[in-house]
Amino acid sequence: MAQAQKKRTVIARSDSNEAIQREKTGLPRRSGAPPRNDASVLSHVNTPADLKTFSDEELHTLAQELRRATIEAVSQTGGHLGAGLGVVELTLAIHTVFNTPEDRLIWDVGHQCYPHKILTGRKDRIHTLRQPGGLSGFTKRAESAYDPFGAGHSSTSISAGLGMSVAADLANDPKNVIAVIGDGAMSAGMAYEAMNNAGAHKNRLIVILNDNEMSIAPPVGAMSKYLTKLVSSKSYIGAREAGKKLMNVMPPPIRHAAKRAEESARTHLGSGSLFEEMGFYYIGPIDGHDLNQLLPVLRNVRDSRHNGPILIHALTQKGKGYGPAENAADKMHGVKKFDLLTGEQAKSPASAPSYTAVFARQLIAEARNDDKILAITAAMPDGTGLDKFANEFPDRTFDVGIAEQHAVTFAAGLAAEGFKPFVAIYSTFLQRAYDQVIHDVAIQNLPVRFMIDRAGLVGADGATHAGSFDIAYLGCIPNMTLMAPSDAAELEKMVTFAAHYDNGPLALRYPRGEAIAAIATDDSPVELGKGRIVYSTNPALMSSPRPAQQAQTAGIQKSPKDNTTAILSYGTRLEESLKAAKQLEEKGHTVTIADARFAKPLDENLIRTLCTDHRTLITIEEGSTGGFGSFVLDFLANNDLMADLKVRTLTLPDTFQDHNDPTKQYEEAGLVAENIMKNVKEK
Amino acid sequence: MAQAQKKRTVIARSDSNEAIQREKTGLPRRSGAPPRNDASVLSHVNTPADLKTFSDEELHTLAQELRRATIEAVSQTGGHLGAGLGVVELTLAIHTVFNTPEDRLIWDVGHQCYPHKILTGRKDRIHTLRQPGGLSGFTKRAESAYDPFGAGHSSTSISAGLGMSVAADLANDPKNVIAVIGDGAMSAGMAYEAMNNAGAHKNRLIVILNDNEMSIAPPVGAMSKYLTKLVSSKSYIGAREAGKKLMNVMPPPIRHAAKRAEESARTHLGSGSLFEEMGFYYIGPIDGHDLNQLLPVLRNVRDSRHNGPILIHALTQKGKGYGPAENAADKMHGVKKFDLLTGEQAKSPASAPSYTAVFARQLIAEARNDDKILAITAAMPDGTGLDKFANEFPDRTFDVGIAEQHAVTFAAGLAAEGFKPFVAIYSTFLQRAYDQVIHDVAIQNLPVRFMIDRAGLVGADGATHAGSFDIAYLGCIPNMTLMAPSDAAELEKMVTFAAHYDNGPLALRYPRGEAIAAIATDDSPVELGKGRIVYSTNPALMSSPRPAQQAQTAGIQKSPKDNTTAILSYGTRLEESLKAAKQLEEKGHTVTIADARFAKPLDENLIRTLCTDHRTLITIEEGSTGGFGSFVLDFLANNDLMADLKVRTLTLPDTFQDHNDPTKQYEEAGLVAENIMKNVKEK
Repeated sequence: MAQAQKKRTVIARSDSNEAIQREKTGLPRRSGAPPRNDASVLSHVNTPADLKTFSDEELHTLAQELRRATIEAVSQTGGHLGAGLGVVELTLAIHTVFNTPEDRLIWDVGHQCYPHKILTGRKDRIHTLRQPGGLSGFTKRAESAYDPFGAGHSSTSISAGLGMSVAADLANDPKNVIAVIGDGAMSAGMAYEAMNNAGAHKNRLIVILNDNEMSIAPPVGAMSKYLTKLVSSKSYIGAREAGKKLMNVMPPPIRHAAKRAEESARTHLGSGSLFEEMGFYYIGPIDGHDLNQLLPVLRNVRDSRHNGPILIHALTQKGKGYGPAENAADKMHGVKKFDLLTGEQAKSPASAPSYTAVFARQLIAEARNDDKILAITAAMPDGTGLDKFANEFPDRTFDVGIAEQHAVTFAAGLAAEGFKPFVAIYSTFLQRAYDQVIHDVAIQNLPVRFMIDRAGLVGADGATHAGSFDIAYLGCIPNMTLMAPSDAAELEKMVTFAAHYDNGPLALRYPRGEAIAAIATDDSPVELGKGRIVYSTNPALMSSPRPAQQAQTAGIQKSPKDNTTAILSYGTRLEESLKAAKQLEEKGHTVTIADARFAKPLDENLIRTLCTDHRTLITIEEGSTGGFGSFVLDFLANNDLMADLKVRTLTLPDTFQDHNDPTKQYEEAGLVAENIMKNVKEK
Repeated sequence: MAQAQKKRTVIARSDSNEAIQREKTGLPRRSGAPPRNDASVLSHVNTPADLKTFSDEELHTLAQELRRATIEAVSQTGGHLGAGLGVVELTLAIHTVFNTPEDRLIWDVGHQCYPHKILTGRKDRIHTLRQPGGLSGFTKRAESAYDPFGAGHSSTSISAGLGMSVAADLANDPKNVIAVIGDGAMSAGMAYEAMNNAGAHKNRLIVILNDNEMSIAPPVGAMSKYLTKLVSSKSYIGAREAGKKLMNVMPPPIRHAAKRAEESARTHLGSGSLFEEMGFYYIGPIDGHDLNQLLPVLRNVRDSRHNGPILIHALTQKGKGYGPAENAADKMHGVKKFDLLTGEQAKSPASAPSYTAVFARQLIAEARNDDKILAITAAMPDGTGLDKFANEFPDRTFDVGIAEQHAVTFAAGLAAEGFKPFVAIYSTFLQRAYDQVIHDVAIQNLPVRFMIDRAGLVGADGATHAGSFDIAYLGCIPNMTLMAPSDAAELEKMVTFAAHYDNGPLALRYPRGEAIAAIATDDSPVELGKGRIVYSTNPALMSSPRPAQQAQTAGIQKSPKDNTTAILSYGTRLEESLKAAKQLEEKGHTVTIADARFAKPLDENLIRTLCTDHRTLITIEEGSTGGFGSFVLDFLANNDLMADLKVRTLTLPDTFQDHNDPTKQYEEAGLVAENIMKNVKEK
């Protein structure tokens, strides 16, 4: 309660400024006449049960307040804004009409769930969204009974919802299951698989298609065109028509007559034939911002006895009700903290380009010299930096929609014809195309280049978006080449390498965020399967690795290996490795730091040198177990190189880490200098 | 040529018997009047170019011969029969009309490609199908220029085809790209993703929907119902109508007028609206066995200048033209060698049930006592043994179609509601649902049971179907429990364990083929993360593992670890491990054989015992690197247990192994007693 009070104080600040800006931003007004004896309706809502007592007028007021609370929360925390604003009325209507949490409400890609969290017992913590220890930016089962299914990746809600609906049937439980899915998410095959299955079932399942003609980027694909045509060909369906469509509440004899009449009317109206053909009962389109439409339609659906899936087609506007969001190209999809009145987002103090930007810049440079280079994205042109590539090479850029499976096999088709496709997909989303990487690319040894962005931990997006597994899940595949740069300069070289490497599939991973320009510059070119020593106390090692047999004599102490440590880093943990090197030297250790560059094939010569010359060998990577460290161990063990060696493989822990500042996440994971120190053998 | 002669001799055998059986089987007759001066038209076909010279009559004869050659080949080799027989005329028509291999022909799931292989320079080797060193049972790029894209998994052809079509456009190459895809494959999200993308492109792509109302099992899902409705509502389209539809060869002014007329006609005909809505130009249905329809329709399509994807809906009959196949429930989908005249398949000499059958039997037993147990398959009820489960529990069995992604998240929804879903999917196909395993199951720690059939090498199906990677790709995921039985008795126990383990996701892998009943029976129950010692020269180790500190005194030789070997087996390589044990004992070694049972969590106590008491520790598994052996190494290295130990991790090699007898494949992989011996340290 104290927190709520405090928040209201925040809301009340700078009223005079606000008055001036109000027209410009369209920021929702506060309720003029408080309907209860305190400042807002929202203050009376602790759980959705409280909504049932409100009048329609109060609900309208509440929608305004809910929108305002959402904007204010995100202005303080950053996060996803546009999506939430698009579903304010929908959220309110669903929780008013249905009996959550007994009725199951599943938000596809949970980033639209902020208004939902405010209404479901979490408004006092909404200012902690995506903050360390605070609320998740997505739905999360562990967080609330009102989040029956977590989602950070898109297009899962119909599958999960059908599972819950079937479970309800088996348990003879009459609960409702409601899945809200965006039109962008409908481009994913998973949504189609679920509809194809649901459409043949007699299970009750309510799917609300939240059609805002926008996922993250503008929508692509035939389904999107179909929806546009569907909407443009007809006007909003009224509550009465929606009621007519759901004639099943009537007794059977009347129902049959009504059904015939209704079917004829439906043909005339030009209903959503594609969805009908898929076995769904289609209702729509309705105005997703008009409670006067939403409430009666949802009530009709709730009270109908239709067996089988129902699709309600609701038109919404991403960023609705907040001028700066409505006017932004991306509808303020994902934002930093911003000024409430102007919508202006906080600037990052730093000026370093991101790894994403470095990749894009270098790929463009390569593409200018090689017209076989093509770029493919699965609905993430901005996130992957390919928007810049598309500006220069629109005909050589392909956005296939949220469709990673297709993206990869499409690229395989291009590679089979002699092109050089660069498929830029986040590590976590490439999981969607795992079979295609194996079956369509690797088995055929086709030179598809996987540019794996957001590798490693990603901060506020949390476990669903962490790029933890790609080294392990790709490293076990024959024919794959795996690379990771330690800084921006290395990334540039590696993109160039990838442009020229045409002997099979290649995956290049790099993290989210700002790039370190050049942590250990050298002129050494990137060669297949070759790492490099970037620092050594023993200058003899600083040149290129020597054959192992010479190493024995290179000692600089009596027992040549006492207090000698080698750190073999894969990726951008090189910075922490160099920090540790400094601290170890201060303690009198001889230290060698190597940058593996490749996880596959391994630089066996380099590893032999490191383990011959040092007492401790530490591998470090921004990935799970089963990855780079495992490949090194495999080599060491099967070549009997571990007899006199302490080896530690520092990886991400075998847990799903909660969202947090990435620096904190890596501390928690132990992938920092301090933990490297702890793993070094003394003497 | 000698081979071809020989084959013809085989064909000619037992003519009199054949005459008697002919009516019964409907086996295609040999061409009555040889149109050339030798026995058959087929003998004149070496490449598709030869087809262009034939008259229509000769093509009809050739179809008969091609069907007969297909049946004869499979009768000798076993393999996929029904699918190939369904596309005899289609294959012939495509190669006659189009200019392969310059025009690209992609067969979705290559198992329908046998007639294609016969026509494309491989008829002399067709009797080597799926045999060691012989032709692959699927299309394969390395095998022929006529196989531009390999496929063993379904639903990839439209994606690959679109890639090739875009490549042709970019290269200003007017080639045609033809993808042939079955109606069953259309239930996979990947096919939808590709259609959604293709439908929005202006690239020329010809998709032939080979609609036989049958994939492997009877089809499921709304799309299948839609196709049935579509077909039943209209008669075959004639070549003339098909020509009318493709009016684009006409000059522009006429074209416009024609287009208007045609659109009106199309509405009347009730065209394939779902495909049209997805941006495809729909033509059909046509009779896929009638060359008089196929040839002119394909010629019209080839000569049209329609920009954009075209879908030709061809109705075919799986097993067409061979009585025993037409009459079989599965249309002789996959067969053993069989008697040409009766269709009777060779019986396996053995009577041992398969691991699949053992799993199914045990799951049924558990389900009788626990009504929360549910079973889910992705279009493989027979292959996974769930057909038997469905017989007893039809309402608790869910076949979701070829839709692994949906299957897993659907199961997650069921688990979230307190049910116990068992998802039975082959190892290689679970790759299709990798993201769902991580994102929807593991992150939420939902107790979904993955029953991973066909784990390890699979023999004649080759690399596309090998279950090589699941230990690695699942082992890196937090919250997962991984198990593998060493024999049938262990599998039974593990299914029981899985039925009762409700703390998170669990994966249980077992191989293709006959189960060893009980290779090392004991009464020890299966406990989470506990392995067992199944044999030891040193009887003190035969009981439950002792604490490591006692092990030092357990030696039976002067230098207690000389010639001591431990083998830690995960899965069904236990048999080979015991063989190796016998040979090692004969050489005077002390040997201990352990069955890990779990790859995750590891039995650390057991591993400590093994490495304390033995000089050599060998791990063995039917999986790739990055799996069980890596987990063991990780434990050993990070706990400094390797100082005085020779460790070898025997895994599948880092290559894609060609099809072969599984025994030979495992020999090649080195996962046999002989190779275990080679890895043991002497002294």
